[in-house]
Amino acid sequence: MKPFAAAPLDLQHGRIDLSHGAGGRAMAQLIEQLFARSLHNDFLAQGDDGARLPRCHGRLVMATDAHVVSPLFFPGGDMGCLSVHGTINDVAVMGARPLYLAASFILEEGLLLADLARIVDSMAEASRAAGVPIVTGDTKVVERGKADGIFITTTGVGVLREDVNVSGAYAQPGDVVLVSGPLGDHGMAIMSVREGLAFAAPIVSDTAALHGLVSDLLDAAPGVHVLRDPTRGGLSATLNEIAHQSGVGVVLQEAHMPVRPAVAAACELLGLDPIDVANEGRLLVVVPANQAEQALAALRAHPLGREAARIGEIIADERCFVQMHTRMGGRRMVDWLAAEALPRIC
Amino acid sequence: MKPFAAAPLDLQHGRIDLSHGAGGRAMAQLIEQLFARSLHNDFLAQGDDGARLPRCHGRLVMATDAHVVSPLFFPGGDMGCLSVHGTINDVAVMGARPLYLAASFILEEGLLLADLARIVDSMAEASRAAGVPIVTGDTKVVERGKADGIFITTTGVGVLREDVNVSGAYAQPGDVVLVSGPLGDHGMAIMSVREGLAFAAPIVSDTAALHGLVSDLLDAAPGVHVLRDPTRGGLSATLNEIAHQSGVGVVLQEAHMPVRPAVAAACELLGLDPIDVANEGRLLVVVPANQAEQALAALRAHPLGREAARIGEIIADERCFVQMHTRMGGRRMVDWLAAEALPRIC
Repeated sequence: MKPFAAAPLDLQHGRIDLSHGAGGRAMAQLIEQLFARSLHNDFLAQGDDGARLPRCHGRLVMATDAHVVSPLFFPGGDMGCLSVHGTINDVAVMGARPLYLAASFILEEGLLLADLARIVDSMAEASRAAGVPIVTGDTKVVERGKADGIFITTTGVGVLREDVNVSGAYAQPGDVVLVSGPLGDHGMAIMSVREGLAFAAPIVSDTAALHGLVSDLLDAAPGVHVLRDPTRGGLSATLNEIAHQSGVGVVLQEAHMPVRPAVAAACELLGLDPIDVANEGRLLVVVPANQAEQALAALRAHPLGREAARIGEIIADERCFVQMHTRMGGRRMVDWLAAEALPRIC
Repeated sequence: MKPFAAAPLDLQHGRIDLSHGAGGRAMAQLIEQLFARSLHNDFLAQGDDGARLPRCHGRLVMATDAHVVSPLFFPGGDMGCLSVHGTINDVAVMGARPLYLAASFILEEGLLLADLARIVDSMAEASRAAGVPIVTGDTKVVERGKADGIFITTTGVGVLREDVNVSGAYAQPGDVVLVSGPLGDHGMAIMSVREGLAFAAPIVSDTAALHGLVSDLLDAAPGVHVLRDPTRGGLSATLNEIAHQSGVGVVLQEAHMPVRPAVAAACELLGLDPIDVANEGRLLVVVPANQAEQALAALRAHPLGREAARIGEIIADERCFVQMHTRMGGRRMVDWLAAEALPRIC
């Protein structure tokens, strides 16, 4: 490929304009000088309308996620790494090994190239750390006021492990419910920026790629029934979905629920429950009782699962209720949020 | 999966609100009553964070495209079918058989559910007609004024044909350049709506899935060097890209360029050149001279290639110029558009 003879982009003070999405020379420059430079790999370097990938062995898994988080930068991460982690996690919780990502950008006219470069660099770093390359992409630009800075859709492809069989529909009465760490960190990191809350120790997003943790878990406990990452809607939405998919009930123990003190305090201030708040680096596991101990041990042996806990169990319940034994000794329903309490959290 | 006991969505007068993207019950209802009902297939019915797909044989191809076309509905199509065709075509022009699509939606608060349903139904119809199912998806909602109705990113996966080897980098001096039909229909269909132009016969988008045409072409002429769908930036941007990727020049014959009279008239009115205008159902082919006749015959034998034409040839040129012999007997440079002449065309 011959490089285009053109002045370099001003990555400090330049801004996105409509020509960067028009399919012409300006778009080619943006791709060459910003995207391709930061995300560089052999697949992207093919320079065609898509990526030619190696032969793959096994059953495919495919997952896609649009990312619209606001603000774009937050304690512990930004939209860039979040968009890589989120889709890697969606593939991993299917019981698959993530192999490749595609990334599609919708940019608002006026976006600072410096912000775009920072986000793309963060994607590149997250992708390299995870060993899952971004192999193809697309860029569109819309007029000022028709988007909000940047939206990123990532799509992941992976290959199913042959030795496991997980689905939201496979929870069974008697199964144990585990979570890999404290709840609500990501959502409250975003909310504390939005609401201008200041704490002695800032709340930091848990955004992380979970495929390594999932792999260790499944090696130790291949009988796992359900894996999920409780993002939007938090643990409560995820467990209600699983209860409906599997036609079972769930009983949680509030006293066993890991929540950081700062997150608990921020939630109380805003009238939120940590189990309704999004996580971006937590794994929810439903596992037969006879593999629960080895599953918990495997989670705790991994850097991303040190604070893993057993938080409840699956029961027979045709109404598919999710319930919680409270610290006070009572029992309450755990419904999922009906309203827009936490928009644009991911 | 147990259905949710909830009032049905008002698909006539209802509108998207932030709760439809919040991960809770309203989102589950939207997915169940609108997306899943319209796009139904066995993969989507799995109801997990991604899709579990069959074993695939061969080398994978992956392509992604964001769709931000404005207006959402235009003569000959809408954002829904366009988003299906566009990504199928990106996979097909890699020399691959498209197998699966993922679809990710960014919705603006206030979007009419009736418009969303119409667009999703159009996707479903295009996907079924093409035999390429939408196997997984995602929905986000942003506040009013932070998007423009709806943006759709589709990502496609396919398997490479073993008997072909195409890339934008493989054009060779002496190769022949073919196009499968008239140029500029899609772009001028959009522009005539935007500019309020009225013609005796309305200009209709050429949006179409090209994988069948590509398959017939490659059966007849497996030696094809380059396949592309000249979308944003039109033929001129696509040929300039190929010239740079391959390190060659291109000479076009204006007299051989197929352009419908209405498109030519609209272009003249707006000061545009049809070769700069987007197509969404046209195939550009660069083929060795000794397979050009059979390639042209294969294109013309397919319903989507009846008006295929031979429009130019590849020459040796280190400067990678694209030139055109004009009808007047002159010669001019064909640069790609530097400016935002045609934003949000796809």
